[in-house]
Amino acid sequence: MANSYGNLFRITTFGESHGLAVGVVIDGCPAGIEIDLNFIQKELDRRRPGQSAIVTQRKESDQIQILSGVFEGKSTGSPIAMLVWNENAKSKDYTHLAEAFRPSHADFTYQMKYGIRDYRGGGRSSARETLARVAAGAVAKLFLKRLGIEIQAYTSQIGELILQKSYQELDLSQVENNEVRCPDNEMAQKMIAYIKEIRKQGDTIGGVITCVCKNVPVGLGEPVFDKLHAELGKAMLSINAVKGFEYGSGFEGVKMKGSEHNDLFYKENDKIRTKTNFSGGIQGGISNGEDIYFRVAFKPVATIMQNQESINLQGENIEITGKGRHDPCVVPRAVPIVEAMAAIVLIDFYLIHKALNNKYLQ
Amino acid sequence: MANSYGNLFRITTFGESHGLAVGVVIDGCPAGIEIDLNFIQKELDRRRPGQSAIVTQRKESDQIQILSGVFEGKSTGSPIAMLVWNENAKSKDYTHLAEAFRPSHADFTYQMKYGIRDYRGGGRSSARETLARVAAGAVAKLFLKRLGIEIQAYTSQIGELILQKSYQELDLSQVENNEVRCPDNEMAQKMIAYIKEIRKQGDTIGGVITCVCKNVPVGLGEPVFDKLHAELGKAMLSINAVKGFEYGSGFEGVKMKGSEHNDLFYKENDKIRTKTNFSGGIQGGISNGEDIYFRVAFKPVATIMQNQESINLQGENIEITGKGRHDPCVVPRAVPIVEAMAAIVLIDFYLIHKALNNKYLQ
Amino acid sequence: MANSYGNLFRITTFGESHGLAVGVVIDGCPAGIEIDLNFIQKELDRRRPGQSAIVTQRKESDQIQILSGVFEGKSTGSPIAMLVWNENAKSKDYTHLAEAFRPSHADFTYQMKYGIRDYRGGGRSSARETLARVAAGAVAKLFLKRLGIEIQAYTSQIGELILQKSYQELDLSQVENNEVRCPDNEMAQKMIAYIKEIRKQGDTIGGVITCVCKNVPVGLGEPVFDKLHAELGKAMLSINAVKGFEYGSGFEGVKMKGSEHNDLFYKENDKIRTKTNFSGGIQGGISNGEDIYFRVAFKPVATIMQNQESINLQGENIEITGKGRHDPCVVPRAVPIVEAMAAIVLIDFYLIHKALNNKYLQ
Amino acid sequence: MANSYGNLFRITTFGESHGLAVGVVIDGCPAGIEIDLNFIQKELDRRRPGQSAIVTQRKESDQIQILSGVFEGKSTGSPIAMLVWNENAKSKDYTHLAEAFRPSHADFTYQMKYGIRDYRGGGRSSARETLARVAAGAVAKLFLKRLGIEIQAYTSQIGELILQKSYQELDLSQVENNEVRCPDNEMAQKMIAYIKEIRKQGDTIGGVITCVCKNVPVGLGEPVFDKLHAELGKAMLSINAVKGFEYGSGFEGVKMKGSEHNDLFYKENDKIRTKTNFSGGIQGGISNGEDIYFRVAFKPVATIMQNQESINLQGENIEITGKGRHDPCVVPRAVPIVEAMAAIVLIDFYLIHKALNNKYLQ
Repeated sequence: MANSYGNLFRITTFGESHGLAVGVVIDGCPAGIEIDLNFIQKELDRRRPGQSAIVTQRKESDQIQILSGVFEGKSTGSPIAMLVWNENAKSKDYTHLAEAFRPSHADFTYQMKYGIRDYRGGGRSSARETLARVAAGAVAKLFLKRLGIEIQAYTSQIGELILQKSYQELDLSQVENNEVRCPDNEMAQKMIAYIKEIRKQGDTIGGVITCVCKNVPVGLGEPVFDKLHAELGKAMLSINAVKGFEYGSGFEGVKMKGSEHNDLFYKENDKIRTKTNFSGGIQGGISNGEDIYFRVAFKPVATIMQNQESINLQGENIEITGKGRHDPCVVPRAVPIVEAMAAIVLIDFYLIHKALNNKYLQ
Repeated sequence: MANSYGNLFRITTFGESHGLAVGVVIDGCPAGIEIDLNFIQKELDRRRPGQSAIVTQRKESDQIQILSGVFEGKSTGSPIAMLVWNENAKSKDYTHLAEAFRPSHADFTYQMKYGIRDYRGGGRSSARETLARVAAGAVAKLFLKRLGIEIQAYTSQIGELILQKSYQELDLSQVENNEVRCPDNEMAQKMIAYIKEIRKQGDTIGGVITCVCKNVPVGLGEPVFDKLHAELGKAMLSINAVKGFEYGSGFEGVKMKGSEHNDLFYKENDKIRTKTNFSGGIQGGISNGEDIYFRVAFKPVATIMQNQESINLQGENIEITGKGRHDPCVVPRAVPIVEAMAAIVLIDFYLIHKALNNKYLQ
Repeated sequence: MANSYGNLFRITTFGESHGLAVGVVIDGCPAGIEIDLNFIQKELDRRRPGQSAIVTQRKESDQIQILSGVFEGKSTGSPIAMLVWNENAKSKDYTHLAEAFRPSHADFTYQMKYGIRDYRGGGRSSARETLARVAAGAVAKLFLKRLGIEIQAYTSQIGELILQKSYQELDLSQVENNEVRCPDNEMAQKMIAYIKEIRKQGDTIGGVITCVCKNVPVGLGEPVFDKLHAELGKAMLSINAVKGFEYGSGFEGVKMKGSEHNDLFYKENDKIRTKTNFSGGIQGGISNGEDIYFRVAFKPVATIMQNQESINLQGENIEITGKGRHDPCVVPRAVPIVEAMAAIVLIDFYLIHKALNNKYLQ
Repeated sequence: MANSYGNLFRITTFGESHGLAVGVVIDGCPAGIEIDLNFIQKELDRRRPGQSAIVTQRKESDQIQILSGVFEGKSTGSPIAMLVWNENAKSKDYTHLAEAFRPSHADFTYQMKYGIRDYRGGGRSSARETLARVAAGAVAKLFLKRLGIEIQAYTSQIGELILQKSYQELDLSQVENNEVRCPDNEMAQKMIAYIKEIRKQGDTIGGVITCVCKNVPVGLGEPVFDKLHAELGKAMLSINAVKGFEYGSGFEGVKMKGSEHNDLFYKENDKIRTKTNFSGGIQGGISNGEDIYFRVAFKPVATIMQNQESINLQGENIEITGKGRHDPCVVPRAVPIVEAMAAIVLIDFYLIHKALNNKYLQ
């Protein structure tokens, strides 16, 4: 069950980085949604390797193929299976890693847990799995569009380079205008230059993605365990390399007093709103109609172009040599992944809320 | 399903703050576990109102009663239902809130979502629900003890007062020695004094809880979605007032380079270990045998002893008066809740791992 | 998870026959449903021991108590916990059974599976658990009433006494008019006399319950695994003593040719209907708007008032003496249980359909 | 979620009869199982169209392809995705059915439920989906073999032709020796001749499959809802064309008295066994170590080679003409499907039992 996510809108992903294919089955997509293949492909292209100078130069065209669940361009209510064939497997690149445990990768834990491991390029633990999430997320977005819900993520920090502006001060339509997906162009250029420098060092760097969801109706989220932010948190933390999640005021908010932090209600036209939004659009685990925003921390990529000492399957000391084609920073390519998982969470809660409470759906 | 948590070891909680009772059903507790009622009660006492001068002075004895699933002191494999009767309901205290939306509470979202609301003291959205989690977590801890797994949480930040020492520099056996549950006594006294000052102001303050899990076997966690840290994150974020979760290097780790952040493997006796532990004991979503540690951010309590403007059900401007008995800071009482949820997550993953992979369980 | 049933409308039952209490938590009951306590109690009374001369004479008042989830008479969307305290435990009656394996009871399998067993009157395997289902089913029925859906079960066979009339030839309003719950009074009297005779023999007898669901909207059921009849089948087979389930033409239908068995469509007013209903109101796993009907087989009660040879925990030969107060036939009391489980299945599918497809809900 | 089955060993199927492919993802297959592709293919061949003179003559080679989860011939613990490409789609055969509702097919209910329908050959409601179940079941069988558990199904009734011998009186190794999969050769020849006659009439006929599971360890099944027979029942009822399920004494058992029906325990060598087995190897929902046996009723195939009146999407009267290539009786090809679903149910319960109770696993 661990390769499935969601309750009513449930995705199941499969595939290894160097197997035949990576794919996803969406079970629970409502019927009658127009499935725009171009849009899905476009989303995958945002995640694709080789898309710019600051990401891995591996070559994969990542062409999506829909196998089922779509008839005459529309979803039928049956499971939608989608597939991307792996083109650039080059398994021989990886034979030297068959018995090596690369530092801060999942090699050791997979070997210990399963007693067997597809060592070619990370196998199942490779971030290549996330293309299946992006494909499923694109379908979720097609649904969200009908509801007027918008999700936009962007790069807000690379290493020590922190974008100080809040999302309200930014023009989020600028996110796709640069390679690092930071809507502030000046900061974007600094980030790009820094990532290039890091790459030259044969090193990697972490970063933070901020995500904003607008026009989410009041009422999404299912307390007490499936609170909207709890599920968003799990969804984000399930993405490769993520180390932290916070929403609204987050970790900084703990320094505030209640009298400062409380979001006071007021009435704007006929709508009840809050003057501030430290709650991040979620109160008691349920969306309150204000913008939802959250931040996701990504660690530096574990594969570096430097030699590292390690241990192998036999417990012997070995040296891992730094070679291959890898991302110096995962953040620019992770922006569409964050959006995809957010879309999947929102759709799922939307459907549950429709089932249980639709009279009150706004 | 939203009031259940866990897969094989699944808890379902019920009850409102001012209803008849709050309780929990544990489905999937293995048979033959000695159910030590005193231990369960002791855990509840750590969460109990009125336990010290820096928590709410509401009176509830919170005596736990086991209704089923235990025979001659042992679990039978049947569902364990446990109940605490509410003693100090005093519903009349709350009639003035029947139509008021208290700022940064769940009043507004519950009303909008469900169209009806038990307005007495927060109803289902009250943190009183967490006593059910603590009771279930105590049963989980009884199981974990047999496995030698230890979970210890503590207060590491109150407002701007930040405990700079890492958990390795602290004596975690000191946590229960002071009211704020901070193992550094000097810092604890500062925190206590600060909370008392905040209370005098009629205000509230947030904080951070750090949690450490020791002796967790290698192999717990189920990628790709049910990664150990993803589920821990969801479990923590589902606790009232939580705004953020990070594990291992967390948000600070994004500033590091891969060459600094990678945890190098080495061999100690016959065990493969890592020299550093920025991974927080989890790699690829699976425990690697090192200590697991994570941090949980709690916002300031929304109920303050000051008057606040707000809106009521009719959309009219109202004033909420500050009165009643409430926590100036939720963190000291939340320490056992964090531990309880961690225990539940670990037991669940332990059982799943035993099912699917026990040959390799270390 | 095995003590929960349903997806969106999910019930979790707990309690043993001779423990403190038996109860249920309903998670996912939509808000705003009027919770008529009298109706719930009335349903429980239909299942209650001692209600007539042909059922067990054990004394239990089975008074239901609602602990949570209801406010001012209406469901709030929070979990509804309901409890019945066990009054007539008399544990000493059972000490002689502590190590005995009663034939065709669950004593042996529970002992082997769990290594421990609450031997008092069947413990968790006792049919007393089904009162929790009836209570939850009563809540489901309150919801179904709003939708105009009617569920009526009745006794259609006791031993060799088979009611030959189809449900269309019967007046189902007569079901509660006699103790055996057979709507044909002449057959009912024969059945009652027969059960009394069986009781005199110190023996027991099996039977069949037929259940009819009317006014079910088109579209309920979720292929390919959660077909409406598949879930009804599981729900029925999960009831104590059930050995078989068939719907529509059932086992007899296998003798028919396709040309005889096919239900031809025609138009009646503006509604598409079928001329015959061998499909039992379900096609492709989805309700088609015709009456749903199915049959459930119950074996003879395993507890008889005769001495039987057996084996005990030590593997020694023993004799089980026939004594105590037990049902000579479980069928009359099982009628409300069958209805309850059918109601729970229908509500759950109704909610899922509302989530995924409500545009087409008729 | 409705296209997934199982808890720990969970299969998700996808694909329509005339789409690109039909496939399955197995999530939760333990690592280290040898995945014998030839065996999986052999199982699919037992279900394949065109395999004999008494099944549909449609041409499909049904070659299975494994996309993921297997490395160097063994399962890795990651999801196993398997695919069969549809070869013989011939969509034009079906355009005349775009708006027609075929009697006793799922056309009408799918159209009403989803508002859109892949009308080509049944689309998702086609029994072609069951090849995915057979592929997954083959993997489950590979696991069961290691445990020594054997599953064998066979045809026990075609129309009025009823095999009177019990499974103990039959040589189950003979099942694959004839086209109808009946282990009694004399009866098999009658059945084959009868099906050929039915085919000549352009008609179809129903039947019954009996399934026997041997060497199932004591302890499988999870009361109170996930009883072993309840889950077997759901699994069987989810197969296309199934109308009924009974286990052990089944519907006939209701005529027996408790004193006749009770299975008395005795000791054979060191094993506790029952003298009779009306319980069908399951007591209280848990396997007791005796043979498990159950019967599954299949209705006559709805597609007949005769003209039938019906209604179309516009509610107009139409005539459906009998043409195409279809099974006169689904039973011979359904034998491996019944076995597959039984294997999946048993593996799932085996894993759950291992998680919760492995100390007692025999």
